[in-house]
Amino acid sequence: MPLHRRTVLYLAVGLCGWSALAFAQQVDPLPSWNEGKAKQTILDFVSRVTRERGQDFVPPERRIATFDNDGTLWAEQPIYFQFQFAIDEIKRLAGQNPALKGKEPFRSVLAGDIKALTADNHKGLGQVLARTHSGTTTDAFALSVANWLSSARHPTKQRRYDELIYQPQIELLQHLRANGFKTFIVSGGGVEFMRVFAEKAYGIPPEQIVGSSGVVTFRLDGSGKPELFKEAKVEFVDDGPGKPVGINRFIGRRPILAFGNSDGDLQMLQYTAGGDGPRLALIIHHTDAEREWAYDRTSRIGKLDKALDEANAKGWTVVDMKDDWKTVFPEAK
Amino acid sequence: MPLHRRTVLYLAVGLCGWSALAFAQQVDPLPSWNEGKAKQTILDFVSRVTRERGQDFVPPERRIATFDNDGTLWAEQPIYFQFQFAIDEIKRLAGQNPALKGKEPFRSVLAGDIKALTADNHKGLGQVLARTHSGTTTDAFALSVANWLSSARHPTKQRRYDELIYQPQIELLQHLRANGFKTFIVSGGGVEFMRVFAEKAYGIPPEQIVGSSGVVTFRLDGSGKPELFKEAKVEFVDDGPGKPVGINRFIGRRPILAFGNSDGDLQMLQYTAGGDGPRLALIIHHTDAEREWAYDRTSRIGKLDKALDEANAKGWTVVDMKDDWKTVFPEAK
Repeated sequence: MPLHRRTVLYLAVGLCGWSALAFAQQVDPLPSWNEGKAKQTILDFVSRVTRERGQDFVPPERRIATFDNDGTLWAEQPIYFQFQFAIDEIKRLAGQNPALKGKEPFRSVLAGDIKALTADNHKGLGQVLARTHSGTTTDAFALSVANWLSSARHPTKQRRYDELIYQPQIELLQHLRANGFKTFIVSGGGVEFMRVFAEKAYGIPPEQIVGSSGVVTFRLDGSGKPELFKEAKVEFVDDGPGKPVGINRFIGRRPILAFGNSDGDLQMLQYTAGGDGPRLALIIHHTDAEREWAYDRTSRIGKLDKALDEANAKGWTVVDMKDDWKTVFPEAK
Repeated sequence: MPLHRRTVLYLAVGLCGWSALAFAQQVDPLPSWNEGKAKQTILDFVSRVTRERGQDFVPPERRIATFDNDGTLWAEQPIYFQFQFAIDEIKRLAGQNPALKGKEPFRSVLAGDIKALTADNHKGLGQVLARTHSGTTTDAFALSVANWLSSARHPTKQRRYDELIYQPQIELLQHLRANGFKTFIVSGGGVEFMRVFAEKAYGIPPEQIVGSSGVVTFRLDGSGKPELFKEAKVEFVDDGPGKPVGINRFIGRRPILAFGNSDGDLQMLQYTAGGDGPRLALIIHHTDAEREWAYDRTSRIGKLDKALDEANAKGWTVVDMKDDWKTVFPEAK
């Protein structure tokens, strides 16, 4: 090949490479986040821990990021979606088994008296959860959750519950994974409930979900087929001080990034921030009564009080939903 | 470029590609396995589930493989290595705290009377395990395991315990991962014990290890630093019917391949083999008194009796260590 043709070729290849690089640098990995301190803190952190030979470099196997679910990855008002599932299941079961209609606490549920469930230290709620989350195999339970998700609609947003996920967080999860992070859910919600939709909704596979659980037993059915049976007994509550315990049990490494939204996330954030090296602790502050909901220190669901004080005292990043998020939910499909 | 030069170029590229392919096909991914039925069954299975558009194709996210540890990935004679760790720890602690020397069951341990530990339904053993596996933080415990691994030597093999891993299994784990499998340990051993060495020894990260565990509590130390404290209370025994329960809790998907060596693995194998689609259940039969150990139906450690009968009845793959393995342990470094 004559020299001038080779030179042109090199120039072309060089220009292509440079353009691709420039383009990549211009593409915003977090388009649903408004420019501001929160977004910049996140981008800087990811950039610092992935810069090889930088002093804050963290090897990929230690890039563990944990996210709460209710109020952090999807909405949680007016009641936790999993509670709504339980209420809807009672209605469905009462259709099949009318005897339920006369028995408390199911009568209250069917009459729409949700408040009655919280009396006597949430005794009724416990009975409703037990009735809808046990006495069945894990496979049958997963099927009932999938059926509910496909048919139920949120009372005010009029959308599928698994569409009320936060678009900015979907982008953040993707940005973290694109930078070698392993992303986990660490939630007070039931692990068997979340596993039904989390892979499709968030790209988080079942084995990266830590949650509350009930006792499960192994048995062979009448034909010798193995099955796992859900018992009516709580085994682990992955909330508050249970979150770092769950992280230790399931993941076995301390996260370098954790994201929560309520006092139930305080200890996870303390544990994450308390390790050596670069750390990022984040809290979503629900400040957007128009697009989502506005609630914090006195909310019945997702109370954010002590964790907000500690975030302010320790310089954790508080994301203001109204100011920091350009979009809240993904566009309807 | 004139046509004939282009033709030569295409030919060259084609030949290179073909040679690379032919070479790849000739490289044996399991060189420490002798040719035979077991090796062929494994290679065929991996090939079947990864062949796109084949009728047995399994998408990568469902390629879950679970391995027992003691007797399946590393040796377990003359006593489980974790018990040896506990005994050695008692000796170390007695050096620091001479009062231990006069107290049972520690006196028996120090006198070398290991049998005394198993009397009264293993009461002494439980006390030894509690003394060496609790009353400390998770970080301090991990350090004590690491120190022990670097200094202790197996009584007859005279090697580090984490060198008494099975070379054929290391190759199998690598072959599975190279084919899109996610490899997990599911062992009766302590999860905090295994996590110290499993990543280096087997390439299995902490978050892919399921094991037995004690209760851990979260607390802030005197200076407000978060820590996880190991309590003297058993939380979960990942053995027998506990194995499918542990798989469900930690992984949330049914494996398509499981490998064990004792009756404690029976339910994991049943659960794995009992799912739909292609399945591979494997058992190592310890038949090699010369290079390793020979034991099965009457062994005190790693008893293989019911699971061997069921393997024969159901056509599971029984790997004969003496016949099927060319090498047992990796070469000394």
